[in-house]
Amino acid sequence: MRDGNEEMQPVWVGGCWRPATAAGAFQATNPSNLQLLAPHFPLSTWSDLDEALDAAVEAHRQLRSLPVEKIAMFLESYAALIEQAKESLVEAAHEETGLPRAPRLADVELPRTTAQMRMAAAAARRGDWAMATIDTVAGIRSCYQSLGPVCVFGPNNFPFAFNSIAGGDFVAAIAAGNPVIAKANSSHPRTTQLFAELAAKGVDQAGLPRSSVQLIYRTSHEDGERLVSDSRCGATGYTGSRHAGLALKHAADRAGKPIYLELSSVNPVVITRGALADAGDAILEQYVSSVLMGTGQFCTNPGLVLMLQCPETDAFVDTLAQRFQSAPVGTLLSPAVTRSLSAAVATLIDRGARVLSGGTQPETGRCALANTLLRCTAEEFLADSDGFQTEAFGNAALLVVARNEDELFRVLEQLEGNLTGSIYSARDGREETLYQRVADLLAMKVGRLLNDKMPTGVAVSPAMNHGGPYPATGHPGFTAVGIPASMLRFAKLTCFDNVRHDRLPLLLRDPNPTGKTWRSVDGAWTTASMNH
Amino acid sequence: MRDGNEEMQPVWVGGCWRPATAAGAFQATNPSNLQLLAPHFPLSTWSDLDEALDAAVEAHRQLRSLPVEKIAMFLESYAALIEQAKESLVEAAHEETGLPRAPRLADVELPRTTAQMRMAAAAARRGDWAMATIDTVAGIRSCYQSLGPVCVFGPNNFPFAFNSIAGGDFVAAIAAGNPVIAKANSSHPRTTQLFAELAAKGVDQAGLPRSSVQLIYRTSHEDGERLVSDSRCGATGYTGSRHAGLALKHAADRAGKPIYLELSSVNPVVITRGALADAGDAILEQYVSSVLMGTGQFCTNPGLVLMLQCPETDAFVDTLAQRFQSAPVGTLLSPAVTRSLSAAVATLIDRGARVLSGGTQPETGRCALANTLLRCTAEEFLADSDGFQTEAFGNAALLVVARNEDELFRVLEQLEGNLTGSIYSARDGREETLYQRVADLLAMKVGRLLNDKMPTGVAVSPAMNHGGPYPATGHPGFTAVGIPASMLRFAKLTCFDNVRHDRLPLLLRDPNPTGKTWRSVDGAWTTASMNH
Repeated sequence: MRDGNEEMQPVWVGGCWRPATAAGAFQATNPSNLQLLAPHFPLSTWSDLDEALDAAVEAHRQLRSLPVEKIAMFLESYAALIEQAKESLVEAAHEETGLPRAPRLADVELPRTTAQMRMAAAAARRGDWAMATIDTVAGIRSCYQSLGPVCVFGPNNFPFAFNSIAGGDFVAAIAAGNPVIAKANSSHPRTTQLFAELAAKGVDQAGLPRSSVQLIYRTSHEDGERLVSDSRCGATGYTGSRHAGLALKHAADRAGKPIYLELSSVNPVVITRGALADAGDAILEQYVSSVLMGTGQFCTNPGLVLMLQCPETDAFVDTLAQRFQSAPVGTLLSPAVTRSLSAAVATLIDRGARVLSGGTQPETGRCALANTLLRCTAEEFLADSDGFQTEAFGNAALLVVARNEDELFRVLEQLEGNLTGSIYSARDGREETLYQRVADLLAMKVGRLLNDKMPTGVAVSPAMNHGGPYPATGHPGFTAVGIPASMLRFAKLTCFDNVRHDRLPLLLRDPNPTGKTWRSVDGAWTTASMNH
Repeated sequence: MRDGNEEMQPVWVGGCWRPATAAGAFQATNPSNLQLLAPHFPLSTWSDLDEALDAAVEAHRQLRSLPVEKIAMFLESYAALIEQAKESLVEAAHEETGLPRAPRLADVELPRTTAQMRMAAAAARRGDWAMATIDTVAGIRSCYQSLGPVCVFGPNNFPFAFNSIAGGDFVAAIAAGNPVIAKANSSHPRTTQLFAELAAKGVDQAGLPRSSVQLIYRTSHEDGERLVSDSRCGATGYTGSRHAGLALKHAADRAGKPIYLELSSVNPVVITRGALADAGDAILEQYVSSVLMGTGQFCTNPGLVLMLQCPETDAFVDTLAQRFQSAPVGTLLSPAVTRSLSAAVATLIDRGARVLSGGTQPETGRCALANTLLRCTAEEFLADSDGFQTEAFGNAALLVVARNEDELFRVLEQLEGNLTGSIYSARDGREETLYQRVADLLAMKVGRLLNDKMPTGVAVSPAMNHGGPYPATGHPGFTAVGIPASMLRFAKLTCFDNVRHDRLPLLLRDPNPTGKTWRSVDGAWTTASMNH
């Protein structure tokens, strides 16, 4: 590996791979051996972003007049290209993230990524997502439409399925008809670059405007804030740390630009006494598997367990601590994740949590923290509920034990917004009153309520909500996973009032555009054409 | 009329009419004679808001377990009570706003208000609004649900149909299952108080929690910002001035609380040469009627007209100026509206707009400004597009004349977000290329695109979008008019994953809850029950 600007990787802006107007360079680290990886990626200055925005506006102008079929074809071509390039993508992502090549990257995440693309292609083609609504009496017709260039900031923990240029936000934005300006996650730039090369081919194959997809790797916080609040930006999708996300949110909010954020979540799991009595061993297995899966680096990782004091709880906790100690210690995604996880664990300990397992950084020569299990009482939690809700992103969890149900309810009332909340309760009906109270409180705080199930594993279903009240996300009405609903984030509602029939979007004309598109006509959903 | 605190009107907080913890008092002005109206209304301190929030949280807890039938009954009882009290409502609103008793208040706005309530009742009962989505394979079911206390700040221009305790936002929030904390518009507090008295009766008749509806009249800006960002607040609906709205938006955004704003809009109308040639006289009549209706005090008032230079345009402008001069001068809603309209007109003149008619405040002994028509060139507009987009809320309009189509396109590109945009073009197909270009640019900037029609008159239709890109509103994906879509603003998406069937909300269980509720089951909309 050599240093020097001559090796700097190019950005993909305005339809060309070209040198960045760079203010510096960065390299990713292989978390499995702490070695810097060879390629140098540029820190773009405003000039790159400015050009990307102009190009995206022009691409959007062209996209608006293209048949949706071309967008669908792009997504399908891209999916096929990804499958062909599977080996190099898996290798790059493994090197940059430490995630296992198989089954995780090759057999789970990559198929999920291409499946999402094909679902988005089908959604774009059919048009159901746009919720065409027709009032024949008033002569008014409306639907959701693209809103312009979407900036996507992807997270570190899904180098494929939430990659800023291939993942959930990307496909939702593209399928809704928007160009995307992707900002790579700095911990896996090479993986992202590989995707961009494939996306570029897909764009050409489908005949989309070349600037429908663009890529920069990194920029200053100041320029990032300028990007999401620029008048040319339509909306932003961001998944990542709360701190960086809130800075972007404030900038976008000030400018009146929609921004969708997935920030942090501790995903509380309530386990009642009845659940322990009926199925304690099974719940323990499920929990250990869920909380340590992927070294705990899932947005829906169950990092907070709420239990009621009883001998079964003590036994559960003891066994859990042993399991944390004996489980293999996974590799964390990056030095930054290791640092922030260690800091979060230190904060929790500092607030008074007791260490049942782990808490230390082993000398492994890789990014890692010992599997960490912490415990506090509900009383302690209630005395400092903000502090005890510090997200420890990674293989760490906090158990909160309440003396009675009333204390448990008060803990639930103090919860911040979360993506998920799970309740394990007695198999029969003997705890239904307790369940109702817990569920009623928890449902207000989460996007997804589970019964007898751990929250990891987010099905790509139209019924999924991968969202939740602030600070889990920026708005409780939108989901980041689940096509077609996730597309609505990147759309504006447009109403056509008295617009001449041959000037309407195809979706709103009398004939059903595909013969199978769901539309709401005079209050009833139908796939039929209208008489005209 | 006497002064003194002993006459201060009570607030309705926590289910009781009680004296406010007031920091001062205010009186409304009769805009028809500039006399202060007798009743003194309190300026509430934080203590009132704090108590209202606590009571609303408790009301929400109770509402969550009540059948929706009770909410529907409340809305219907309330509508009937309003009709019974029609005379006193019309009298109070006329006195406080200067709007004509009939047809406007008695025959148009009051029936619209009660119709909205009944539509909201029907929507609550049927549940279609909640978009129940069921994935039987994944075992996941989701729908929109209430999110908690909604604060409603109503505007000055619809004392009934957008009243904070009876209008569009109110019924949408209530029908979605949320308690409402209403903040009266300070220019019609007595009208609002009358509504609150009726709402209180309706709450009791239907057996809703008493704090489902609460009313304060006014508060400091600081306490208003604290209210919308309080952790107990679910969301806020605000309609009013851009300045006050943005202060609330910034506070709510910082706290991650949804806030829906309707701020300002100049509602551009494009009139092509072909339209003038084919139907110039008819368009002139439509425009005069639309722009001066209600003394121009509609959110969709067509305050900006874009035309192309030609002899027909000059003739249109001349006739229009005469019509502005000869038309009767209406009464403005309040001294504040008169001041801000005069200031906006002064700003436009200061930027270089020429006065074709009006521009002065007549000595009428009431709130009024002469019907004001201003003109500038597209070149002038482009040199100061922010300044020339100053909203002059009231009976004033700006004509912008472009030398050619290219100049027109550039003006369209510079437009801010608006609620509506209208295009009048040739009757036949000879201007379709021009139309497509104009419509493509305009549709990106507006919530509702019209053909051959003025924007005033907002049908309460499921297909309506009374919304638009910032700064017309705070989010381009939501509408403030049109049930059931407007209810989605006051809801959170909640997903039930593996939740036991008898614990699901009725809306998500296998049997269709009403036999006619639309639900999306495995990708198809249906009103059928599921086999189980």
